[in-house]
Amino acid sequence: MKFSCQGLDLADAVLKVVKAAAVRTTNPILECVKIVAENDKLTLTCTDLELTITKVIKADIKSEGTAVIPAKFFAEFASKISGEQIDFHLKDDKIMEVKYSDNTAVFQCQEATEFPAPHTLDNPNYVDIRSDYFRDLVTKASVAVAQDDSRPMLRGILVEVEGDEIHGVALDGVRMALIRKPTEAHSAEFGIIVPARCLLEIVRLLPENNQVVRVCTQKNHLEINLGDTVLMTRLLGMKSDYVSYHQILPTNFATEINVNRQHLLDTIDRASLLARAERNYVVKFNISNNQMVINSESQLGNITERLLITQNGNDLVIEFNGRLYTDALRVISDEFIKISYVNATNPCVITPTEGDDFLYLILPMRPM
Amino acid sequence: MKFSCQGLDLADAVLKVVKAAAVRTTNPILECVKIVAENDKLTLTCTDLELTITKVIKADIKSEGTAVIPAKFFAEFASKISGEQIDFHLKDDKIMEVKYSDNTAVFQCQEATEFPAPHTLDNPNYVDIRSDYFRDLVTKASVAVAQDDSRPMLRGILVEVEGDEIHGVALDGVRMALIRKPTEAHSAEFGIIVPARCLLEIVRLLPENNQVVRVCTQKNHLEINLGDTVLMTRLLGMKSDYVSYHQILPTNFATEINVNRQHLLDTIDRASLLARAERNYVVKFNISNNQMVINSESQLGNITERLLITQNGNDLVIEFNGRLYTDALRVISDEFIKISYVNATNPCVITPTEGDDFLYLILPMRPM
Repeated sequence: MKFSCQGLDLADAVLKVVKAAAVRTTNPILECVKIVAENDKLTLTCTDLELTITKVIKADIKSEGTAVIPAKFFAEFASKISGEQIDFHLKDDKIMEVKYSDNTAVFQCQEATEFPAPHTLDNPNYVDIRSDYFRDLVTKASVAVAQDDSRPMLRGILVEVEGDEIHGVALDGVRMALIRKPTEAHSAEFGIIVPARCLLEIVRLLPENNQVVRVCTQKNHLEINLGDTVLMTRLLGMKSDYVSYHQILPTNFATEINVNRQHLLDTIDRASLLARAERNYVVKFNISNNQMVINSESQLGNITERLLITQNGNDLVIEFNGRLYTDALRVISDEFIKISYVNATNPCVITPTEGDDFLYLILPMRPM
Repeated sequence: MKFSCQGLDLADAVLKVVKAAAVRTTNPILECVKIVAENDKLTLTCTDLELTITKVIKADIKSEGTAVIPAKFFAEFASKISGEQIDFHLKDDKIMEVKYSDNTAVFQCQEATEFPAPHTLDNPNYVDIRSDYFRDLVTKASVAVAQDDSRPMLRGILVEVEGDEIHGVALDGVRMALIRKPTEAHSAEFGIIVPARCLLEIVRLLPENNQVVRVCTQKNHLEINLGDTVLMTRLLGMKSDYVSYHQILPTNFATEINVNRQHLLDTIDRASLLARAERNYVVKFNISNNQMVINSESQLGNITERLLITQNGNDLVIEFNGRLYTDALRVISDEFIKISYVNATNPCVITPTEGDDFLYLILPMRPM
């Protein structure tokens, strides 16, 4: 194996694929990057068995071959010689000699055959979606993903294709996010649970310009092919393994308000400062006379703020964990939002003032 | 106590003084900010008993008084209402009522008399120095300050005024920094040991434009008055308490080289990547024929790089902890530097190619 490439191309590629390399594992091969020189192209792959990222770059291949070397270390090294042309030469399948300017580095290689074999999808189902919609869906849904490991399925986002829509659903026991976006095309309806961290990593690698991306799935895998970069992730399960979230959605609202999102966010943000000191984040909302009074108390003092709202229905006093609100309000971009309440003990629902692009459900605190 | 001020002025001031507030202490009053309304001015003070920062801002004082409230919390609060005019009203010396727009916050105050009394200097010694020189002196010396607590004096920088020069000295057992700058004026020669963290905090608050600052000292205190902002720090000791650093400086060099600083930094940076994996950071330097070969090895592989240098004197093979070199080379801005060696077991000395603006002394690794 012998090839030359530009340091800038190499550094860019390694820094992208290294995101899929395992960190602190008992299996060192998962902390490595596999480098394949073949057909005038260099293919770099990292995988932690859940997420796999592959990136292809141009290279001048003098002889084909495969080498496996520590990924994090190689990424740092590559980024420090990105300005130069680099010549690689694999010797005895064990030693990778790297020449740049007048300098030489030599890296010990791992056994290439031990690197996990790539998984390929054969005639998968697919959905085509605009990349900006996909990014929005993942970003907004990930707010409600569970952070602990007690129920592994809840570390994922349920991605559903139904009719001409794609849905992203996440919930963690005290809140739920449901995001709806239109699709461009799809092969069949399906519902899969995808690890949220993998979807967030995919979103980071999506191109900035809006183009249609094809999300493919087959058995327990999801794949997105962005041309030079291919991302593959194992699924956590299928729709049938997930919570029946439709049953949680409240109906029969007794109070509905319209409120400026940024004003509400700023207000809860300040109120949460005090609530944070008590480590319970309780913020009290008092709705009446087209006004919302937001109040929090702690040993440090108390904060009371007033917001003008448009109110329909009953007056209401209700307490929430302020953080659940601010998490959701930060990822929404609408100027005004609608909040619908059943009563002081049932979940409230945050939606756009028009349409059903997103829905956040938040459980109130139980009155002590 | 009753006053109004602009949120932006207040937020800026609190965020500056809060740097001197104690973190995680058994004495909660040291985590507070003292707010004094007097003579149409608001004076904010934080102190952890080592560093004290005081800042004065304009305010519309309706009645004078003093309040003491938790600093970190108040800084966050102030930064979240920086766009508004704020009205303060202290009630019963215990409750601070804060009004902004239509909103009200109420903070519990601490007992103002418990806040440490300010220390004032009476007819102190002083040295006047250009602020850019002072910043450079502190930044370059702080590289060699000890990070552990085993010898408290070494957590400080020795600041010496001798003749028309000010010196900054720091050492930690494996390296030493000695920075020399001209002064504009001084009242007397002196030598004091100042906590490095306080000097770094002072440097952060120095104005960007180059002006002459007066550093005052008396007994065990140092004070810098920047007009609206006054910084005071307790000293760790006097010059007589510090290591006699002149005795450490080697003479009789057998090898001297001139080298491009950035090239040397980049090279050691790459070599340290491998050395880091071994956690010993050993980088080997081989000087001969106007060339420096830099080499490091670990289980991952090895790196060998060549640098053109101007060599005077003997050939030399010597090993260093690469980090000690990169720390120093990063804060130097000269294009070329001079390195002088005695032999493989004595410290080397990094200096400018002309002048004596800075001197770094670095101990080599002992050959095993």
